[in-house]
Amino acid sequence: MPETSDDRPLAPFLRACRNLPGGPDDRVPVWFMRQAGRSLPEYRAVRGAGSILDAIRDPELSAEITLQPVRRYGVDAAILYSDIVVPVAAIGFGVDVAPGVGPVVERPFARAADLERLRPLDPEGDTPYVLETVRILAKELPVPLIGFAGAPFTVASYLIEGRPSRTYGKTKALMHGEPAVWHQLMERLADLAIVSLRSQVEHGARALQVFDSWAGALAPPTYEEFVLPHSRRVFEAVADLGVPRIHFGVGTGELLGLMAAAGADVVGVDWRVPLDEARRRVPADRALQGNLDPALCLAPWEVVEAAVRDVLRRNAGHPGHVFNLGHGVLPETDPSVLERVVELVHAEGRCDGPVDGEGADR
Amino acid sequence: MPETSDDRPLAPFLRACRNLPGGPDDRVPVWFMRQAGRSLPEYRAVRGAGSILDAIRDPELSAEITLQPVRRYGVDAAILYSDIVVPVAAIGFGVDVAPGVGPVVERPFARAADLERLRPLDPEGDTPYVLETVRILAKELPVPLIGFAGAPFTVASYLIEGRPSRTYGKTKALMHGEPAVWHQLMERLADLAIVSLRSQVEHGARALQVFDSWAGALAPPTYEEFVLPHSRRVFEAVADLGVPRIHFGVGTGELLGLMAAAGADVVGVDWRVPLDEARRRVPADRALQGNLDPALCLAPWEVVEAAVRDVLRRNAGHPGHVFNLGHGVLPETDPSVLERVVELVHAEGRCDGPVDGEGADR
Repeated sequence: MPETSDDRPLAPFLRACRNLPGGPDDRVPVWFMRQAGRSLPEYRAVRGAGSILDAIRDPELSAEITLQPVRRYGVDAAILYSDIVVPVAAIGFGVDVAPGVGPVVERPFARAADLERLRPLDPEGDTPYVLETVRILAKELPVPLIGFAGAPFTVASYLIEGRPSRTYGKTKALMHGEPAVWHQLMERLADLAIVSLRSQVEHGARALQVFDSWAGALAPPTYEEFVLPHSRRVFEAVADLGVPRIHFGVGTGELLGLMAAAGADVVGVDWRVPLDEARRRVPADRALQGNLDPALCLAPWEVVEAAVRDVLRRNAGHPGHVFNLGHGVLPETDPSVLERVVELVHAEGRCDGPVDGEGADR
Repeated sequence: MPETSDDRPLAPFLRACRNLPGGPDDRVPVWFMRQAGRSLPEYRAVRGAGSILDAIRDPELSAEITLQPVRRYGVDAAILYSDIVVPVAAIGFGVDVAPGVGPVVERPFARAADLERLRPLDPEGDTPYVLETVRILAKELPVPLIGFAGAPFTVASYLIEGRPSRTYGKTKALMHGEPAVWHQLMERLADLAIVSLRSQVEHGARALQVFDSWAGALAPPTYEEFVLPHSRRVFEAVADLGVPRIHFGVGTGELLGLMAAAGADVVGVDWRVPLDEARRRVPADRALQGNLDPALCLAPWEVVEAAVRDVLRRNAGHPGHVFNLGHGVLPETDPSVLERVVELVHAEGRCDGPVDGEGADR
């Protein structure tokens, strides 16, 4: 049954996000970043060949794609099928998502004058299809829907570099070389994220994830000065909505404490930092999300199984754990492996104490 | 004058690598990864258009390219102009370095039968040009020459993926799925590295760097089981040569202690981990190398200056610091910025105590 009443019992995913202890029968909830997508044959069957931005403009299709992994895997949460560049594309910045490449920008952001190309987002007028997808899903989903937005830094990096980058040289040059322009750009992108996130919750999303996927490219002092204030503003501006806020990035081992400080209820951890070590870097009142290496899902099942158990063990005894991969599902992943991961997490991921008698410090 | 006598005073670079305190007039030594290369107009003038592997086969040219940054910047060490795929290319595995892409492999490593394509390296027979370049440089360089090799994992990742990867999915699948084949592959690549490194020292290199550039893609337990034993064998097999051994990778914050344990005298640190934090993860008897963000060199000088001072401060009071970037020089870097960085490090990088009265724990 859809969860539409406010006196319903809290779903396991939402409880874990809130760091609320479960009973002895409760299990660690699980979902997968990019669970909706190329690894699923049913996705490839409905998706067609066009840009992902075209698919996102079709609410029935996007809702179906969002539902597919919930049906197949029995995951505890669904993430809206969308993309972090949807708002900037919708206001006409000239962004597309090239298959096999990622976001590409026709005229990258280079100077103060480009700020004018970033007008405010009107979700109802600019992205009505996103809200319609959310509305459909709020009715049809048996689990909470996670809405999301790109964090200002990661969206800025795409706008400035013009395409995925390994070095973020132009982004860092602008940040340090023209800090006033940088901060204005970040403010506008924070506004876009805030408006987009709020509209998703108002239409039915029950949790939010802010993707600062590439923040791990920054040294901690740089993050603290040029990124944290803007991400914090995003988190604070959605606090009143009362939904859990997840903050995720890749390679962010040195930033976990700062990312928690930005206002996250749940800190996403990639596979590079064992969860017990991540626990030491994040305040105890926050939940953690992660952190199986997605590439491990290409290995034989015995290897995956041991790795899943290891992830569970490293946060065992702490109620605040949302099991996930450390980054998105790889396209070449066999869906049956993810099915078994869900089964295993549900069977063995306990919220109320150590797994297999072993402590979190193992 | 070239340093060719064994009773010469130890060069600042070698002393820092050995963690030996300097006198009050001694300064922190500095060199830059990829200091020889595309950012230098004199490099572009001599380099021509062919594959880097062709340039490496020309000892006079390679020696000249190695010398260029020493002349221009006054750095304290030179690194041989070569590439980590030179040994595997030289034994006929079918590797080239594509401009703007990186190493590409015609028939990637996929199964046990591919082990036969990795025969032992005979440096004199297979890469005589490398040894000739080293010989020329040992005579002509006013500073120590750093020889190098790719660590087994990073070379394996190129052979298996066939080109640079973001996920290392195939590498991890082979590692976990066929561990026996993986370990045999790593043994052969470790043998190649050992033989290559030894031959470079025997012909005049006075320090060694092992590049495990992409080891940061691995979770610590994975690194420990599948990579560390082989890297350790490389470090142990060159210990008797009596030259400092540097161990470098990108995004290796969680691996610094393990990389030191593999046998490094000097642990390379990228810009993501502040040096004072890196110090806490590495035994006190090891030196650190790093760690200015190379992308910062694209920012205005005041920003670079403050960042250089910050790096110096964070390891101040510890004699074991080789100043470097946290990764290679970006091609778009203005050489005059690197000239000023060298001047600043030499002017202010003290080996014997805190900089500007501030301690290392700042």
